[in-house]
Amino acid sequence: MSTPDIQFLFEPRTVAVIGASHDPNKIGYKIVQNIVANGYTGKVYPVNPKGGEILGLAVAPTIRDIPEEIDVALIVVPAKAVFETVQQCAAHRVKFVLIISSGFSEIGNLEEERKIVAYAREHGMRVLGPNIFGLYSVTPSLNATFGPREIPKGNVAIVTQSGALGVAMIGKAAAEKMGLSAIVSVGNKSDIDETDLLEYLVPHPQTRVILIYIEGVKDGERLVRTLKRASREKPIVVIKAGRSKRGAVAAASHTGALAGAAEVFDAIMRQCGVLCAESIQEAFNWSKFLATSVLPRGEETVIITNGGGIGVIATDACERYSVTLYDDLQILEKIFAPMTPEFGSTKNPIDLTGQATADHYDRALEAARHSESIHSVLALSCETALFDAASFAPMIERNFRAFQQAQKPIVFSALGGEKVEQLTQKLRHQGIPIFPDVTEAVSCLGALYQHYRYRSRPEPAIEPISFEERSLMKVFESARQQGRSFLLAQEAQQLLRLAGIPVPKSAIARTLDDTVRYAQEIGYPVVLKVVSRDILHKSDIGGVALDLDNAQEVMDAYGAILHNCRTHKPEALIDGIEVSQQVPPGVQIIIGARRDPSFGPILMVGLGGIYVEVMKDVSFRALPISRQEAFDMLKELKSYPVLLGVRGEEKRDIETIVDVMVRVGALLQACKNVADIEINPLIVYEHGQGGMAVDARVLLVQGGQEP
Amino acid sequence: MSTPDIQFLFEPRTVAVIGASHDPNKIGYKIVQNIVANGYTGKVYPVNPKGGEILGLAVAPTIRDIPEEIDVALIVVPAKAVFETVQQCAAHRVKFVLIISSGFSEIGNLEEERKIVAYAREHGMRVLGPNIFGLYSVTPSLNATFGPREIPKGNVAIVTQSGALGVAMIGKAAAEKMGLSAIVSVGNKSDIDETDLLEYLVPHPQTRVILIYIEGVKDGERLVRTLKRASREKPIVVIKAGRSKRGAVAAASHTGALAGAAEVFDAIMRQCGVLCAESIQEAFNWSKFLATSVLPRGEETVIITNGGGIGVIATDACERYSVTLYDDLQILEKIFAPMTPEFGSTKNPIDLTGQATADHYDRALEAARHSESIHSVLALSCETALFDAASFAPMIERNFRAFQQAQKPIVFSALGGEKVEQLTQKLRHQGIPIFPDVTEAVSCLGALYQHYRYRSRPEPAIEPISFEERSLMKVFESARQQGRSFLLAQEAQQLLRLAGIPVPKSAIARTLDDTVRYAQEIGYPVVLKVVSRDILHKSDIGGVALDLDNAQEVMDAYGAILHNCRTHKPEALIDGIEVSQQVPPGVQIIIGARRDPSFGPILMVGLGGIYVEVMKDVSFRALPISRQEAFDMLKELKSYPVLLGVRGEEKRDIETIVDVMVRVGALLQACKNVADIEINPLIVYEHGQGGMAVDARVLLVQGGQEP
Repeated sequence: MSTPDIQFLFEPRTVAVIGASHDPNKIGYKIVQNIVANGYTGKVYPVNPKGGEILGLAVAPTIRDIPEEIDVALIVVPAKAVFETVQQCAAHRVKFVLIISSGFSEIGNLEEERKIVAYAREHGMRVLGPNIFGLYSVTPSLNATFGPREIPKGNVAIVTQSGALGVAMIGKAAAEKMGLSAIVSVGNKSDIDETDLLEYLVPHPQTRVILIYIEGVKDGERLVRTLKRASREKPIVVIKAGRSKRGAVAAASHTGALAGAAEVFDAIMRQCGVLCAESIQEAFNWSKFLATSVLPRGEETVIITNGGGIGVIATDACERYSVTLYDDLQILEKIFAPMTPEFGSTKNPIDLTGQATADHYDRALEAARHSESIHSVLALSCETALFDAASFAPMIERNFRAFQQAQKPIVFSALGGEKVEQLTQKLRHQGIPIFPDVTEAVSCLGALYQHYRYRSRPEPAIEPISFEERSLMKVFESARQQGRSFLLAQEAQQLLRLAGIPVPKSAIARTLDDTVRYAQEIGYPVVLKVVSRDILHKSDIGGVALDLDNAQEVMDAYGAILHNCRTHKPEALIDGIEVSQQVPPGVQIIIGARRDPSFGPILMVGLGGIYVEVMKDVSFRALPISRQEAFDMLKELKSYPVLLGVRGEEKRDIETIVDVMVRVGALLQACKNVADIEINPLIVYEHGQGGMAVDARVLLVQGGQEP
Repeated sequence: MSTPDIQFLFEPRTVAVIGASHDPNKIGYKIVQNIVANGYTGKVYPVNPKGGEILGLAVAPTIRDIPEEIDVALIVVPAKAVFETVQQCAAHRVKFVLIISSGFSEIGNLEEERKIVAYAREHGMRVLGPNIFGLYSVTPSLNATFGPREIPKGNVAIVTQSGALGVAMIGKAAAEKMGLSAIVSVGNKSDIDETDLLEYLVPHPQTRVILIYIEGVKDGERLVRTLKRASREKPIVVIKAGRSKRGAVAAASHTGALAGAAEVFDAIMRQCGVLCAESIQEAFNWSKFLATSVLPRGEETVIITNGGGIGVIATDACERYSVTLYDDLQILEKIFAPMTPEFGSTKNPIDLTGQATADHYDRALEAARHSESIHSVLALSCETALFDAASFAPMIERNFRAFQQAQKPIVFSALGGEKVEQLTQKLRHQGIPIFPDVTEAVSCLGALYQHYRYRSRPEPAIEPISFEERSLMKVFESARQQGRSFLLAQEAQQLLRLAGIPVPKSAIARTLDDTVRYAQEIGYPVVLKVVSRDILHKSDIGGVALDLDNAQEVMDAYGAILHNCRTHKPEALIDGIEVSQQVPPGVQIIIGARRDPSFGPILMVGLGGIYVEVMKDVSFRALPISRQEAFDMLKELKSYPVLLGVRGEEKRDIETIVDVMVRVGALLQACKNVADIEINPLIVYEHGQGGMAVDARVLLVQGGQEP
C-alpha cells in the first residue's frame, strides 16, 4: 500500500481525538481544549462512546460516525484498547495515527507495538508514537498536545524523543520568547522517526532551525543521508543524551532504544554538519540565535569591548568555539582609531575602555559594519559608572537591525547588575541576541560559523567504485558452502586484491618444486608459512620462516617447516605452504569498516599498534565517503604528524591510505553479506612508494545475502 | 623595614582618600560617597589641597594635616603626581597605599611603577595596584571602590585582575543575590598579589569561597604553596583568562602580565585543588553554591526526577563532572519503591514519572535523606501538567533546609515555562541552589566533589632528599670556569649519579689497554664512543661502536674509531674513548624539570618518542612533589597503559620511574644554578628490573648561584 504524504501529519485538514474526555483533568480533554484554544484551521472531531459534547463540539461515539476522511487521529485510549482503535482507524482510511498512550516497548511490551505498526502499515497508515505528548504545527495552527496551551509562534521546530522534556521545552520556549514552528514528540519511534519529520521540516518555509533531542538512533543510515542534505538548508541542532555508558543505560530503560557510542555519534554528526549542543540551555541559545541571524560572508570577526577582562575571556572562547579573529593590525587601526579613547586598544579585541558611552559603541559598530574586511562582530560591555541603560538599549537595537540589513552577524553580551539584567531580558525577548555571559555569546557565533562552513564546503564528490560482482561472489563460495562466518586469510587477501587494494604477492605450493618456483616468481626475500586449519599458532611450532633470500634457503625452510609440523602437530592436515613476498617495514595503519547497529556502514581509521590500542586515536565516518572525507579523517588523528614525517623521516604515502580507505568502504557497501572488514596492518611507505595490506579479517553477516 | 599586617588592608581603622573630589562625577568623589554610604565603621579622611567639605566630612589639604595614623590611603591623583603622594604617605607612616590611578605598567610605564613600589617598600608600606577600582571588605563595612554603592553582604570573596570586570561582577553579584565578604582589585600587581590577599581571606571567618579572576601569574611558586593550603580550608574558584595564544596576547596588552601556558596552569591548579571555571557564569554558579552547601560525607549521589529525558542528560553530566552515581540496585529499590509510581524506575536516576507531585518528591527526598548509603542528591523536575508552583516552592525550600541539617548536599533543577522561571528566580534569591539548566546543576555538584576529594586526600608526604652539596658543586666547577651554560654529557651523567639516579656504567679511557680493562670491569656487551668537543655527530663519522661482546671486538673497534676520526676529522682534538655499558632496550620515558617563568620549578613526564613529540601526552606538576603525586602524574598520561603492559608485555618498573621523577625534582630544587634538566630517555625495564637514564641534558642559569 502507498504511504500518505508527511505533509498531512503537519497540515491535516481533519483531526480526530479518540478517547476525548469530558473530564477537564484528563489528557483526552486537554488535547481537545488545546486544539480549540489555538484556533486550528481544520476540523476537529472528538470521539468517545459516551457521545455528548466537549467544549461545544459534538462527540462522535466511534470514528465510523465521522462523516469525513480523517488525516490525523490522536489515540488516547488505554494501551490494551489501542490495537482495536487502530483497526477502526484503518477501516476509516485515516492517514496518520498518533498514539499518545504509553505501555508499549518502553516497558518491554514490544510485541503489541510491533503488531500495531505492522497492521497500520499494511493498511496504508503511518504511526507516530506510542508514548508521546502529541504534535504542534504552526501552519494550520494545530496544538494537538496535552502540554501548555500557549505555544509562541516562530521559526524553531523541535523534535523530541522524551515527552516530559518536550512539554517542559514548550514552556521554556514560551518563557524565553523563542517562537516555534512545530514540536513533535516521537516517543518510541515505532514507525515515524526523525528522518520522516525532517522530510517535511527541511523544506518548510516557516522553519529556520530544527532542534532535535535524541537518545537512540534507529535507522541511522537513512538519518545520515537526510541530515547531510538538511544541514545545507538550515541549521540542525542536536542534544544527544545517553552519551555516557551509564546515561546510555538510563536512556535504554526509558525509551527502549540503545544509545550509540558517543564517539561514533559525534563523528557522524560532524560529518553531517549537525551542531551538537552540550546542554539544553546551549541548544536553546543556539536555536534562538540561529533563527534570527543572517549568515556571514566570511570568517573575520572583531570583538568590540569596554573592558579588557571580558575581551580576554571572549578571545579565549573564540579559540574554543573556532571563531576567527581578524588580525590585520594596520587595517584595524585605520578603522577604529578615530573612536578609541586614550589607553584603549585598536588591536582585536577593540578596547573602547571603561570611558565608552553608547555613542562610542555606535561609532565603532558603524565602522565595523562598513568595513569589507570584517564579517561579524562580538559587541561586549561591562557595566561601568558610565553605563546608561537608557542609551544602551536603543543603541543595541539600532545596531542589531543595521547589521541584519548589512548581512553581518552580530552578537551582544552585557555583564553587570540589575539594570543590565533588565536590559538584557527585555532585548532578548525582542529576539535580539544578547547574553549575560560572554562565553555563551561566543558559543552562538561559533555554532553559526560551524553551520556556515558546512554550507560553504563543496558537496563531497563520492566516486563510484565498481567491482566485478561475479569474481567477488566466488570468494565467498567455500565460506558459504562450509557455513563459515569468516573468510580464511587467503580468501580475505583475494577479496582485497579484487577490490584493487595492494596485498603481498603470494601463492600456495603443494610441493617443494612449486615452492621454489613460486619464490622465484614472487622475488626474494620471501616468507614461507604452513597452511593448515589445524594449526592456529603457526609461529609457535616453527611453521613460519622469514627472510629467505635464495632457493637454497627456501628448500631448507620447506623441510624444516614440514618437520616441525610433523613433530609438534602429527595429526594436523597440511594443505600446503604459502609462499609470499616479504613486506619491508613501514608505518602501520588500521582500517576498519563495519555495520554499526545504529548508523549502518561506517569506516574507522587509525595508526596501528599502540596508537589505536592505548591512545584510542581513531576517527570515524558513515559510508559512503569521498576521497576528501577520507583525507579529513586522517587529519583528525592526533597521530597525523607521523604520516607527515617526524624526526627527519619522509612523508608517508597518504594517497595510498586514502585510496585503501575508500576501497574498503566501497567493498563493505558492495558486499551485503560482509559484516566487518579490518585491515591490520596496512603497511605504508614513503610518499610515492605505496603500501601493502598485510593482514585482513573479514567477518560475514550470519545468514546474510549475496554481494 | 617590617611590613604591615595584611589585616590592616581589609580592616583599616582609618582611611584617607587622597584626591577626594567635590565633583560628584569624579572617581575621587564616588569613593568617599561609597565609603560613607556603606557605613564604614572606621574613620575616613578626604584629602584635597582645596580643603572644604565633602559629604559633610572636613577635607584635609594634605595627608600631613590628618591628626591620626592612616592604615589605608587611597590615591586618586593623576599618574605623574602619584610618586610624590606616596612619599607623603610614607612620611605620615601610612600602612597600605591603594593606587587607583592608571598610567603605569599597563601602558608600558614600568619604571615609574617600580620606583613607587621600591620607595614604598623601603618605607614599610605595601602597595595595592596601580590601575584598580579599590577594595570592599565586609568586616569593617568598607566600600572603598568607585563601583556600585550597594554591595550585598555575604560569604564570597572576589579577587580580580581586571577592574572593569570586577565592577561588573559586583553588579552581577547584587543582581543574583550572591553576597560578598570582600572584593579586591589587584590591577598591575606591582606589590600585593593574590597570595598576599589569600593570607587574610583563607582564615577570614565570613569568607566561605574565594573567587579569583586571573590573567597572569607573577610569583607562582609562592601562589602554589598558598593555594595548596587554602584549598584544604575553603573552595578556591579560578577564572583563568588569556588561555588561548591569542587571548594571552590580549591579556598582556591589557595588564602587562604574561599569561602562563594553559596546560601548565591547568595541571598546577588541579594539583592545588583549585576549581577552574570555564566562564564567568560557571564561576558564579559554583561560588554561590559552594558558599551555602555543606560538604558531603561520601561519594554516592542519587538523581531523583519526574522526566526520563532530564534524568539521562543529568547522568551524562555526572560522568562529565565526575559525580558518582550510586548503583546498588537492591538498596535503591528498597528505598524508593514505596513512592515510585508504576512505569517509574527505582534505578538511579529514580524516575517518579510525570505523575509525580510535590508529595512524591517529599517522600523520595526524605527517604534519600535518611539513607546512610546516599551522600548527595540531584533533584530534577520538568514542568508537567501536574506541576504546581505553589506546592513545589515550599517543598524545595523545606527539603533544602532538611538536607542542610542532615549534612547532605542537594542541588535542584527545574525546567519549564514562566511559572518555573519565577519559582527558580525566587528560590535562587533565597540562596537555594536551583538551576533552570540541569547541566549547570550537575556542574555545581561536581565542583563540590572536586573540593571534597582534595580535602579528603591526605596531605602529600614530601620526603626530603638530601644530596652531598660539595660533590654536587664539583660537577659544575669546570662549566663555571669555562663560562659554559650547559653541562657536558659526562658531567650531566655524574650529576645524575650523585642524585641517586641509575645511569649506565661508563669510564673514559685514554689508551687501548685502559679501554679493554674498563670494558672488562663494566661487563660485556659494551659501547665505545669517541670523546671530543670537536666532533658533534659522532655516529656519522664512525666514532661510535655498539654491541661489543669481547676484548677482541673492543680492540678492533678502538682501532677503527681512531682511524675513522683521523680520516674524517683530522684536526679534531680527541680527549679519549668512552667505554660504557650497553643498555638493553625497554620503554622510553622523558622526565624534565625546569624553572617556569610563572610557577618556578615544575616537573614534566611523558613516554618517550612519538608519545611526547606527536601526541603531546605529558603531565605537569609544580615542585616539590610526593611519590604519590609522581605516580598520579604517570596515571594521568593517556599512554599509561603502556607502563602496565600491553599486548601481553609485563608491567614496567613504575617504582623506578617515580623514584627518578622525585629525584630529578629534588635535584632542580637543590641546585639553584640549574635552569633545566631533561632525561631523555630513561629506559625502563620490567617490574623489579629497574631502569637507566641513558641521556641527560642540563642547562645552567645564566649568572646563576651555586647549588
